[in-house]
Amino acid sequence: MKNQTLKKIANTIRGLAIDGVEAANSGHPGMPLGMADVASVLWSEFLKHNPQNPHWFDRDRFVLSAGHGSMLIYSLLHLYGYDLPLEELKNFRQWESKTAGHPEYNHTPGVETTTGPLGQGISNAVGMALAEKMLSARFNKGSYRVVNHHTYVIASDGDLQEGISHEACSFAGHNRLSKLIVLYDDNQISIDGDTHLSFSEDVLKRYEAYGWHTQRIDGHDYDAIRAAITLARASDRPSIIACRTVIGFGSPNKAGSEESHGSPLGKAEAILTKKKLGIPTEPPFYINDEVLKITRKAVPDGAKAERNWQELVEKHQKSRPELAAAFQSCLNTEVSADALNIPDFPAGKMATRIASGKVLDLIAAKIPALVGGSADLTPSNKTFAKGQTPFSLKNPAGQYIHYGVREHGMAAIMNGMTLHGGVIPYSGTFFVFTDYMRPSMRLAALMGIRSIYVLTHDSIGLGEDGPTHQPIEHLTSLRAMPNLSIIRPMDANETAVAWKMALTRTDGPTGLVLTRQNLANYDRAALGMGAAEEARKGGYVLVEDKDFQIILISSGSEVEIAVAAKALLNQKNIRVRVVSMPSTDVFDKQSAAYKENVLPASCPARVAVEAGASLGWYKYVGLNGRVVGLDHFGASAPYELLYEKFGLTAENVAGVAAGLIK
Amino acid sequence: MKNQTLKKIANTIRGLAIDGVEAANSGHPGMPLGMADVASVLWSEFLKHNPQNPHWFDRDRFVLSAGHGSMLIYSLLHLYGYDLPLEELKNFRQWESKTAGHPEYNHTPGVETTTGPLGQGISNAVGMALAEKMLSARFNKGSYRVVNHHTYVIASDGDLQEGISHEACSFAGHNRLSKLIVLYDDNQISIDGDTHLSFSEDVLKRYEAYGWHTQRIDGHDYDAIRAAITLARASDRPSIIACRTVIGFGSPNKAGSEESHGSPLGKAEAILTKKKLGIPTEPPFYINDEVLKITRKAVPDGAKAERNWQELVEKHQKSRPELAAAFQSCLNTEVSADALNIPDFPAGKMATRIASGKVLDLIAAKIPALVGGSADLTPSNKTFAKGQTPFSLKNPAGQYIHYGVREHGMAAIMNGMTLHGGVIPYSGTFFVFTDYMRPSMRLAALMGIRSIYVLTHDSIGLGEDGPTHQPIEHLTSLRAMPNLSIIRPMDANETAVAWKMALTRTDGPTGLVLTRQNLANYDRAALGMGAAEEARKGGYVLVEDKDFQIILISSGSEVEIAVAAKALLNQKNIRVRVVSMPSTDVFDKQSAAYKENVLPASCPARVAVEAGASLGWYKYVGLNGRVVGLDHFGASAPYELLYEKFGLTAENVAGVAAGLIK
Repeated sequence: MKNQTLKKIANTIRGLAIDGVEAANSGHPGMPLGMADVASVLWSEFLKHNPQNPHWFDRDRFVLSAGHGSMLIYSLLHLYGYDLPLEELKNFRQWESKTAGHPEYNHTPGVETTTGPLGQGISNAVGMALAEKMLSARFNKGSYRVVNHHTYVIASDGDLQEGISHEACSFAGHNRLSKLIVLYDDNQISIDGDTHLSFSEDVLKRYEAYGWHTQRIDGHDYDAIRAAITLARASDRPSIIACRTVIGFGSPNKAGSEESHGSPLGKAEAILTKKKLGIPTEPPFYINDEVLKITRKAVPDGAKAERNWQELVEKHQKSRPELAAAFQSCLNTEVSADALNIPDFPAGKMATRIASGKVLDLIAAKIPALVGGSADLTPSNKTFAKGQTPFSLKNPAGQYIHYGVREHGMAAIMNGMTLHGGVIPYSGTFFVFTDYMRPSMRLAALMGIRSIYVLTHDSIGLGEDGPTHQPIEHLTSLRAMPNLSIIRPMDANETAVAWKMALTRTDGPTGLVLTRQNLANYDRAALGMGAAEEARKGGYVLVEDKDFQIILISSGSEVEIAVAAKALLNQKNIRVRVVSMPSTDVFDKQSAAYKENVLPASCPARVAVEAGASLGWYKYVGLNGRVVGLDHFGASAPYELLYEKFGLTAENVAGVAAGLIK
Repeated sequence: MKNQTLKKIANTIRGLAIDGVEAANSGHPGMPLGMADVASVLWSEFLKHNPQNPHWFDRDRFVLSAGHGSMLIYSLLHLYGYDLPLEELKNFRQWESKTAGHPEYNHTPGVETTTGPLGQGISNAVGMALAEKMLSARFNKGSYRVVNHHTYVIASDGDLQEGISHEACSFAGHNRLSKLIVLYDDNQISIDGDTHLSFSEDVLKRYEAYGWHTQRIDGHDYDAIRAAITLARASDRPSIIACRTVIGFGSPNKAGSEESHGSPLGKAEAILTKKKLGIPTEPPFYINDEVLKITRKAVPDGAKAERNWQELVEKHQKSRPELAAAFQSCLNTEVSADALNIPDFPAGKMATRIASGKVLDLIAAKIPALVGGSADLTPSNKTFAKGQTPFSLKNPAGQYIHYGVREHGMAAIMNGMTLHGGVIPYSGTFFVFTDYMRPSMRLAALMGIRSIYVLTHDSIGLGEDGPTHQPIEHLTSLRAMPNLSIIRPMDANETAVAWKMALTRTDGPTGLVLTRQNLANYDRAALGMGAAEEARKGGYVLVEDKDFQIILISSGSEVEIAVAAKALLNQKNIRVRVVSMPSTDVFDKQSAAYKENVLPASCPARVAVEAGASLGWYKYVGLNGRVVGLDHFGASAPYELLYEKFGLTAENVAGVAAGLIK
C-alpha cells in the first residue's frame, strides 16, 4: 500500500481516537495517536482476518496489550469492517456500549482478549502463539497447513515492566514461538512522566537474552514498519520491534508528554491537533470515504481467505480422516461422555492430589484438546498424565508444558491458549501460590473462559514446609471472586466429580483445591453416606441422624473431622447432620428449595469446619453458628500435630457443637 | 582464610544440612550441599555482622532468597555464633523449633527476612540496598560513614524465573544499587528436572540489560568465589555472580539431579555422601572443633565492629547534632505525636484519595523516616507529598520513589526497606492491583512489619475504566488475610484517622482503601454524628434513632448511601442506626462488650452496604440480615450510573431494610 494512503488511514484513526475520548470526557488518547502508523501498516498489509467472522480459527490474532489505548482497536475494528458501528465509537465508555474503557473479550467483536491490567495481553499472546505451535505440529501434514497464523501484539513500557511479561517472554524465547510478533510502543513516557524516572533497562538486550529476534525502528516511518514486520515474520524466533513513537503524536502542545496519556486533549487542543494532522475538524468522528473504501476491502479479502482455508480443511479431511477428526475435536474443544466415564475409587486412603493424578491418567488420552502443565511442581501436583509427552522444541506436538517457576505467566498463557481455541489447558501449582497468578485468574473469570487450575498442598495439611506455603485466607479470598469456581473435594471420588465439573464448565475457570496428605475414601454405601456424585450440587448431606439437632458443614480434608465429631456427639446423644460442601459457589447457584433442604432454617445450630479463614463461613452458619477455622498463619511441623495444636480436631469440633445446643 | 579451612567449614555445613533433613525426614538438602562453598567464603571473609546482636544497624544483610535451602542458613547461624543452639538444628521443621521449614523473620535470630515463596528474598534485598543507599546519602557526611553496608543474596533459578525478580532487579539496575550482591546458584536443576526443560535465557545478559555488573564462576572454586565477591564490591553497579554449582554436591548417586532437591538423601546415601566428603558419619550433626573455633571468631570480631561503629556514631552526634538527631529518629522509625496532630477537614465534598494526599502534605516533613512512592500512578494515588523530592541517581537523599509499573516488586522492595530499618515506606497503586502484589503483602503480614499501602480507585466508583480496574472481591479477600489491616474510610476525617492508625501500627501492614470520587465530609457535630476519631475502633455508631429497629452497616463511599437510606426509612417511621465500619479487622479486636454495644444481638435486622463482594459481611448481618453488595463484575460507564444500575442506592437499601422488619 502507498505510504500516503497509510498516512490517511492513520490520521483517520487519530481523529476517531481524539473524538472518542473527547465525547466520553475520559480515556487515553496518547497511545492511539502514537501507534496509529504502526497499526495501519499491520492491519492493511499483514493481518490475516475475516472481519465478518471474528471466530475464524486460522485468523491472525491481534492483541492490544496496552489496553488503555482502546480507541485504537475500536477505530481499527470499525474501519476494517467488523460489526462495530460508528455509533458505538461515539458511545465510548458508556453504559452498555460495545466500546468499554478497556477492550473486553466476548463483548466487542474482534477483541481477542480483555486487556488493561498491564502485562496480561502480551502474556496471553504467548499462550496463543503456543497453542498455534502445538496444534500446527499436531495437525499440519505435508501441504495441509490447516493451522498457520501469527499473533501480533501492541505492548507498552508498562507491559514490559510488569514481571508477568518477563515470565511469559522468557518462556516464549525458550520455546521459539516464532509466529509471535510484539510491536513495542517505545514512547518513553509513563503516567509519572519520562520512563527514565524508573526504567532504563536495555529492553532489546533483555529480549535477546530471552532468545528473541529484535529490531528497533522509527514508529512513524511506514517503510521501516513494513520492513521490520516482514523480517520478524521470517525469523525463527519470537520477535520484538521497538517502535520509537511520540505519544500524543500531532498534538502541538501535548505530544511527547504524559499529559496526553490518560485524559482528553481538551476541545481546543483537539482542534489544533486535527488541523496539524490535516483532519477536518468537523464533523467529529470524521471518516474519509477513500479511506473507508480501502480498509473495508478487508471484508471480501477476509471472506475469501476463510473460504480458501475451509477448502484446505475439507481436503485435509478427505486425505487424513482420522487426523482431521482429532482436529475437529480440538476445534470444538470436545469433552466426550466416554472421557467423563470415570470408575469409582475403592474405599481406602488417598490424597486428593493423587486421585486427581489418577483421574488425569484415565482421561487425558480421551480428550484430544487437553494440555497439561505445572509451574515446576509436576511431581507434587501430579499433573503429568499417562500418554502425555512434554512439549519441547523437539516435540512440539507434546501435550504437557513445563512452565518453569512462573505461576503468573502460566496462568496468563493458559488464558491465551483457551482464547486461541483448540486447547483445554489445565495446570498445577501449590494452592498458596494462587497469590502469584491471581490477576490472570481474575481475567479468566471476567472473560468467562475455561482454564483449570490444579491447586495442591491446600492447607496446613502440607506440614513442615511451614506458613509461607500453607494457605489460610485463600479459600475465602478466591470464593469471593465472581465467576471463579472453587472445588475442594473431600475424597478421591469427589475429586473425580470435581474434574468432570471443571471440564464441562465452559463459561469460566475452575480451581481444584487438593490435599498433599491422605484422606479417607469411605465406603459410602456401607456407611449410608450420600453419593460423591452429589458434589455436583456444591454441597449435600453426607451423613445424618434422624431429627438432627446440629449441622456440621465442611469441605475437603476437614470432612473427616466432621464425621469423627459426629461420632463423638452421637456418644453424647446429640444428633447430627454432616454436610460436605466442596464448592460454595456451586451450592449458591442451586434452587432455594434445595439449599433449604440441605441447610434448613429450622436448624440454626451449625458449625463450619475448615482449615482456613473463618470469614466466608458465616454466610452458612450465621450469627448463632460457629466456625472452627484458622484466622492466623500456620507453622512448620508435621501436619497431624498442627491440626491438633490449632484445634482442628473432632474433639474440639464436638465440643463447640455441643456448646451450641446447650 | 586458607582454602583448606574453607573446605572444612563447607563440609561441616554439608554434614549439618544432611543430618537436619534426615532427622526431619523432610526438607531440601540439594541447595545447601551445592552452595556451601560460596556461603563459607562469604561468611568467613566478607560478611560484616555481630552474631551477638543481630539487630546492629550497620551490619551487612544476608538474604537466603532460595529459602527452601534453610538448613544452609541455620548451619551458618549456628557455626558463626548466633543464638541458635545445635539442639535447634536437630529439631529442624518441628513444632516450636527455631528452625522452621523455610527461614522466618522474627522467629530465628539472624534471619533478615522470611523466604520460601520464590523471588521474594532477592526483591526484599533490593529494598534493603535501596534503604542503605537513601540513608547513607542523607546521613553520611565526610568521614562519618554511619550507614555503610552491603546486602548479599543467595538466589536460585526459581528466584530468577519469577516475574517479581525482573521488576525488582530492573529497578535495582536503574538505581545503581551498587552494594547489592547476588550469588546466583546456577545449578541447572529445578523440581521438574533440568532447568533446560523451561529455562534457557542468558541470565547474565539479561542482568547486563538491567545495568548490572555480571560475573560467572565455578561455585566450588574458593579463589574464584573470593575474587568475584571482591570485584562485585568494587563495582558501581549491583552485581550478580553466576556460581556454577552441583546440586547435592558430594552425594555419589544424587548429585547433579533433582532427586537431591526436595527430599532427604536417605540413610544409606547420607553415609555415602559423608564418606565421600570426608565427614565422620557418627555422631550426626558432627562439628569439627577446629572449624567451630574459626567460625566463632565472628563473635568477638563482630562485637568489635559494632563498638567501632558506635564510636563513629557518637562522634557524628557531637559534630553534627541536628543531622544525628534525624538519624536517630530514622533508626527508631519514630512517628512523633506532633506529626499525628492533624487538624479536622472542614465539611464539604472530597475524595478520600485527595484527603490522603492532604494528610501526607501535612505529615511527610514531620516524619524523617517516611518514604513515599507509587507504581507509576503518582498523580492518581496522590502519594507525592509536599517537601518530598524524587529519589534518583542525582538525588539519592530523595524521599519519594518512582517504582515504575512494578506493583509486585514495589511491595517486596517496601518489605525490604521496612526490614532494613530507618525507613517507614508507604506506596500507592490502584486497589484492584493489590492482586499483583499479594504475595508480598502476605509476607509483610506474616512477618508482622509496617508497610503501608495507599490503594485508590477502590470500587466501581472509578467509573469508565471498567471492570478490569474495578475491585469487587478485593475487600473480602484481603480482610481474610491474617494480620493485614484494611481500612476503608468514609470521608476525609476518617482518612486522617486511618493514616494515624497505619503509621502507629508497628506489628503488621495496613492498606488504606480510598475513593477516586468525591464523598461527603459531614458536619458531624451539627448532624449529631459520632466523631471520626471513633474509627480507631474499626466500627462505631455514626448516627442513630432512639429505639432503632434496624442497623445499616457500611464502609467507605457507601456510608453516604446508608445515611440517605436512613432518611428514607425515617420517612416510613422506621428507626435506624447507621454503623460506619472502616475496618472489620480492627473492629473484631475490640472487646465483646463494645462489639455488642455497636451491633447488639437484640437487633438481628441488619443490612450491610458495600460496593463489593457480599461474602464477608454475613459475619455481621447473619442469616437473617441482608447484604447490598456486588457479586458480579462491574462495567464501564460513569460511576453514578453504575451505582444506580447495580442497586447501590439509598432507595434500594431502604427497600431491602424495610423488607426485613415486616
